[in-house]
Amino acid sequence: MNRSLILGADVGGTYVKYVLGDGDEPGRWTGEVPSDPASPATTFGRLAARVAELLPPAAGIGAAGLACAGIVDVRTGRLGRTPNLPGWEGADLAGLMGIAFPGAAIALANDVNAALAGEARFGAGRNGSDLVMLALGTGVGGAVMIEGRLLAGHRFGAGEIGHTILDVAGPPCNCGNRGCLEAYAGSRGLLAAARRRAAAPDCSPGLRALVAERGDLLTTRDLADLATVSDLAAADRDAAALFREAGERLGQAVGNLLNVLDPDRVIIGGGVAAAGELLLGPCREAAARIVLCEAARSTPIVPAQLGSAAAAFGAAHLAAIHLAAAAPRERS
Amino acid sequence: MNRSLILGADVGGTYVKYVLGDGDEPGRWTGEVPSDPASPATTFGRLAARVAELLPPAAGIGAAGLACAGIVDVRTGRLGRTPNLPGWEGADLAGLMGIAFPGAAIALANDVNAALAGEARFGAGRNGSDLVMLALGTGVGGAVMIEGRLLAGHRFGAGEIGHTILDVAGPPCNCGNRGCLEAYAGSRGLLAAARRRAAAPDCSPGLRALVAERGDLLTTRDLADLATVSDLAAADRDAAALFREAGERLGQAVGNLLNVLDPDRVIIGGGVAAAGELLLGPCREAAARIVLCEAARSTPIVPAQLGSAAAAFGAAHLAAIHLAAAAPRERS
Repeated sequence: MNRSLILGADVGGTYVKYVLGDGDEPGRWTGEVPSDPASPATTFGRLAARVAELLPPAAGIGAAGLACAGIVDVRTGRLGRTPNLPGWEGADLAGLMGIAFPGAAIALANDVNAALAGEARFGAGRNGSDLVMLALGTGVGGAVMIEGRLLAGHRFGAGEIGHTILDVAGPPCNCGNRGCLEAYAGSRGLLAAARRRAAAPDCSPGLRALVAERGDLLTTRDLADLATVSDLAAADRDAAALFREAGERLGQAVGNLLNVLDPDRVIIGGGVAAAGELLLGPCREAAARIVLCEAARSTPIVPAQLGSAAAAFGAAHLAAIHLAAAAPRERS
Repeated sequence: MNRSLILGADVGGTYVKYVLGDGDEPGRWTGEVPSDPASPATTFGRLAARVAELLPPAAGIGAAGLACAGIVDVRTGRLGRTPNLPGWEGADLAGLMGIAFPGAAIALANDVNAALAGEARFGAGRNGSDLVMLALGTGVGGAVMIEGRLLAGHRFGAGEIGHTILDVAGPPCNCGNRGCLEAYAGSRGLLAAARRRAAAPDCSPGLRALVAERGDLLTTRDLADLATVSDLAAADRDAAALFREAGERLGQAVGNLLNVLDPDRVIIGGGVAAAGELLLGPCREAAARIVLCEAARSTPIVPAQLGSAAAAFGAAHLAAIHLAAAAPRERS
């Protein structure tokens, strides 16, 4: 067994992304294997087979970290509610990973927590110890790091920043409430806002045409392209306004977090964040208006750097930490 | 010097409340001395003179903790912005306390942080390590404890929960923004809402009469008495509704915090919290509706237990911790 080899894996509904390497080069091998939404054991078997292909015969790995969407109970190693992996609920993730990778130290984390761990070690959070991350995907995930440690919460319910309510009379959210951050800054919410705007009689022709043309295939990328490319044309006005409104709501949520936690910096990732300054500019302005502590008003609000690999890198990093903590005991 | 004797002091604009005792009986002596809003040195001199009166001649104390409103830089020992003690801004609190209590270990904290430390050790937070406290006074202060440690924030700006924005179009707050928690659940905001309600044509006769009669002397206690005493009479309807609305907004803020931090429990203190279930009932219902993690929906939201003595007790406790941490080094 090569104890310096560390695996990090991020399970999604379709694929498991993995990184495999060591401290010098954590991403020496990267790739993905299909995930089986009905069976974690089958999925981990595929992952173990891939790792065996990459390594010399009979070589093992020192540690494996697994990132998974949903409520991950890091004390018991079990998975709770996880909407995109229905067959995985209640699974003993730590036990199954231990069977797939015998002898390896196993670490588990919620996927957004793992992404923050990855950004903190290798990306936008380097040299920071008190960090907040928001991942703007279909929904909005969140994670909090305090003094270098991820905050899981007393009942593993921390980091649900996407469901902080910004306006009790706001647009409906997938969770059943109204006015959650997710309803404004997740792609589902942003696309719904675009369709509402396109239906209004005074909508810009560009946005109306885009929404009609793309139909169900409309993406936030389409909207960002419309807002950016036709920068000075009348057509882009409403597309830019959509990002400005989402950015201002994101800024309200971030400003609230700065008032509560006063972290080193805030990292914004996920597909919607690819809109860049269209979203982050209004976000920074709105957040600065809210923060009471003068010194905290200029807290950096920065884009994530590792993209969709963040959680796999973070899982590898958490596994390496776990291995280092376990090693002295094993040697004694 | 009696190293087991610990002083805790909480500086307000008018008085310094103190507790003096030891581990068995931290509040053996309690009382207050006038504070000098222009001079921390004069104030600490009065406090030292009082301590000298209480103790045998030539006896000293082992540690002294000081709680102070405003931005307390616990690294440098200096005080930043502090609206109620204008002459204290920039003061070297740690240095001045060291002169007043020679040889004592000195600990400093923001007043709401100290109150949370007090509740955590002696009051509503006993046996909890991940706690959030809201102090509903004229304004609304907040404090966060993670794994037994108070969260100061990267720039000493954490805990400003009173200025998280619940509705960008809400009532004006003293900070210049709109819709802060403080604008709903601080006494200034609640009394403003009562006066707005009393001016409406359909206001209940009881509330209208109370507001007219008490004028500038109106308190949230008056409102709570009206809502409670005349429990079944038509007159109380609007007074109870004021607390229900404030409680629902408090619940929105608490629910948001539960989604971010998932603490053991949440402690609600301050004068407005004396309204008890009038406020806490609607708060608990609103918070439970917001929390995404099912297990966290029933997180206890409890009243504070130490009243206005919490910060002095907490300062004493922080001083005792500081002394215990310093002692091994001093002995070696």
